[in-house]
Amino acid sequence: MFSADRCSAILAAIRTRAPLVHNITNYVVMNSTANALLALGASPAMVHAAEEVEEFVSLSQSLVINIGTLSTPWIRSMDKAAVAANARGIPWVLDPVGAGATALRTGTAADLAHLRPACIRGNASEILVLAGATAEKTKGVDSTRSSADALAPARQLALTTGSIVAVTGAIDYVTAGSRTLALANGHPLMAKVTGLGCTATALVGAALAVEPDRLAAVAAGLSFLAIAGEIAAERSPGPGSLQLHLLDALYQLDAATIARRLKIVA
Amino acid sequence: MFSADRCSAILAAIRTRAPLVHNITNYVVMNSTANALLALGASPAMVHAAEEVEEFVSLSQSLVINIGTLSTPWIRSMDKAAVAANARGIPWVLDPVGAGATALRTGTAADLAHLRPACIRGNASEILVLAGATAEKTKGVDSTRSSADALAPARQLALTTGSIVAVTGAIDYVTAGSRTLALANGHPLMAKVTGLGCTATALVGAALAVEPDRLAAVAAGLSFLAIAGEIAAERSPGPGSLQLHLLDALYQLDAATIARRLKIVA
Amino acid sequence: MFSADRCSAILAAIRTRAPLVHNITNYVVMNSTANALLALGASPAMVHAAEEVEEFVSLSQSLVINIGTLSTPWIRSMDKAAVAANARGIPWVLDPVGAGATALRTGTAADLAHLRPACIRGNASEILVLAGATAEKTKGVDSTRSSADALAPARQLALTTGSIVAVTGAIDYVTAGSRTLALANGHPLMAKVTGLGCTATALVGAALAVEPDRLAAVAAGLSFLAIAGEIAAERSPGPGSLQLHLLDALYQLDAATIARRLKIVA
Repeated sequence: MFSADRCSAILAAIRTRAPLVHNITNYVVMNSTANALLALGASPAMVHAAEEVEEFVSLSQSLVINIGTLSTPWIRSMDKAAVAANARGIPWVLDPVGAGATALRTGTAADLAHLRPACIRGNASEILVLAGATAEKTKGVDSTRSSADALAPARQLALTTGSIVAVTGAIDYVTAGSRTLALANGHPLMAKVTGLGCTATALVGAALAVEPDRLAAVAAGLSFLAIAGEIAAERSPGPGSLQLHLLDALYQLDAATIARRLKIVA
Repeated sequence: MFSADRCSAILAAIRTRAPLVHNITNYVVMNSTANALLALGASPAMVHAAEEVEEFVSLSQSLVINIGTLSTPWIRSMDKAAVAANARGIPWVLDPVGAGATALRTGTAADLAHLRPACIRGNASEILVLAGATAEKTKGVDSTRSSADALAPARQLALTTGSIVAVTGAIDYVTAGSRTLALANGHPLMAKVTGLGCTATALVGAALAVEPDRLAAVAAGLSFLAIAGEIAAERSPGPGSLQLHLLDALYQLDAATIARRLKIVA
Repeated sequence: MFSADRCSAILAAIRTRAPLVHNITNYVVMNSTANALLALGASPAMVHAAEEVEEFVSLSQSLVINIGTLSTPWIRSMDKAAVAANARGIPWVLDPVGAGATALRTGTAADLAHLRPACIRGNASEILVLAGATAEKTKGVDSTRSSADALAPARQLALTTGSIVAVTGAIDYVTAGSRTLALANGHPLMAKVTGLGCTATALVGAALAVEPDRLAAVAAGLSFLAIAGEIAAERSPGPGSLQLHLLDALYQLDAATIARRLKIVA
């Protein structure tokens, strides 16, 4: 099961092995995602060309697919990369950014969700849409619903896809369908920095690269960000400061801090 | 007319309504633009695929089109999005980055300027080119001319296009052709941070999403950035610090600060 | 030859002339590269469309080509821009990010290296691959080898291509084949910030824009970053702080600091 010790062991493994995490992600967060992965101890790369994604996946220890700034050529690369990852047993994570906002997003997210991601991480609106639990329009890329609203649909989605499903918000839920964890770290100011959900997904990718227990890996990835984010928020008068302190806190994160901070509430 | 009270009322409306601002903008500034919109209180999204821009515009309260890192597929998306915004009465802003530097930029900016943007915001060189007032080559994306040089052409451009035209520089001019405002906030160090002009355009987009008086909305959007920028510059030994403090200052911006700082000089 | 005085003279020339540096670079580093060039005193632009790269090169004082987030349309633009730069005598720099990781990267980097760049700057793995000295797979975009391992192949590559070749790492080597400099500035924490190698390449571009002695220009460009980076690292508890202080230190860099800090070890 998941615990502070388990979380720290996963962090130690990331720092020892420096796994290569292949990201096909959106333009907005490429820089901040790469920096978060480096600060944690992983080795990030952003590679999207259809001509090279399969070859690059084969060098990597995990793959992150994020549909934030989608376009047709990138969808083809995402498909190829996901299939290649599956063929080689490389775990991959799906971030269905803005699913529900447009037909292109909803359709692409649903198609990718059927390619057996190790984890699907989204906000409540995105997970509700992906679980088919709502016909509402998502408001852009920010959720209008609380993570608890999406818990039952998230469980169902986990059972349907075989993926660990994570719904992040004030409480982060991580579910395999049967088993569910609830985590209570983080800070509201984090919502004022763009792409921290995307960063959470990428850190989950780093954890999956070193930890075969997928539920524990997903919980660890989310916890790294949520703990670093709450430390950073405590030091920050605004979101500009938070970004800086978040990277410093990820870099300084250690077992003692995890033991003191981690809040597993269910 | 425009005043500190009006500016504060527009800020309050952004924070209350958290308008969804759809950006089709350049790769360089996507992250910093999203963070500035979030810090101010808006809800940003970056969406550019031709397959989804019309659908996404219909969810949004305003649209920002910025030609900074232009390419042919993006031009088609910009056109579709602008037309869709006009059809639904959604205000949109044009940032003609680098107009005058190449034929592609000058032509694209001129075409978009004829699609009835609520506002066109540029530096002096860009506005001079767009107004047809010069045949000079723009030096890359930085202006070689002062904003005052572009004031008469800006007025003419406003009359021709029906747009509010904003020329930013040491003094920011905002003109509807007949009426013109001059604003004197800001700090020279802001020119050492990439894309703050693009950020100004995006904040104008947020203001237009909540305020029907377009002249006041444009002046407010520019003032949010200029005031936050001068506060940030006062705290900063260099441009790295300025970026951080700028986001903090946008987040902390309030009516008292606006009343104390806003400099309307004409 | 290269010296602290020479390095300072090149910095002064950049600040006086504010050269327009045209970048065709990767999505991850566009923002941080533009900010570093601005902080140093240059005028950066990011322009990649095949329709305008030749026209834009003709306005520029130097060109930077970085293959970090490669795709087929961008390769065509890179080729056109390099050829146009050569035709006009505009110096250009190649950053072969991830050469060795995939066939697309290795092939593209090799093709560009034959288009007479003024400088090729890479990490040890990339330069080893480009020099044909290894058949190993590069691990993503991070080097698994020390810069000294690549020195002899770098010399060979310089003789073959006619380019100055720079291999960066704990020691930065700059070689024209016959003459070689070794520079010992920098700090290990810099490896925890994404894209500082790309930033080094861009600053080399700024130096080449103002200095005809290519060996000195390349050494100066690398030294600006390495000195600013070590100053920043001394002030930073982690990589988030380092990014901020790096831009401040580039902005504040002066002859006295260069004289006190620059370590030419061979």
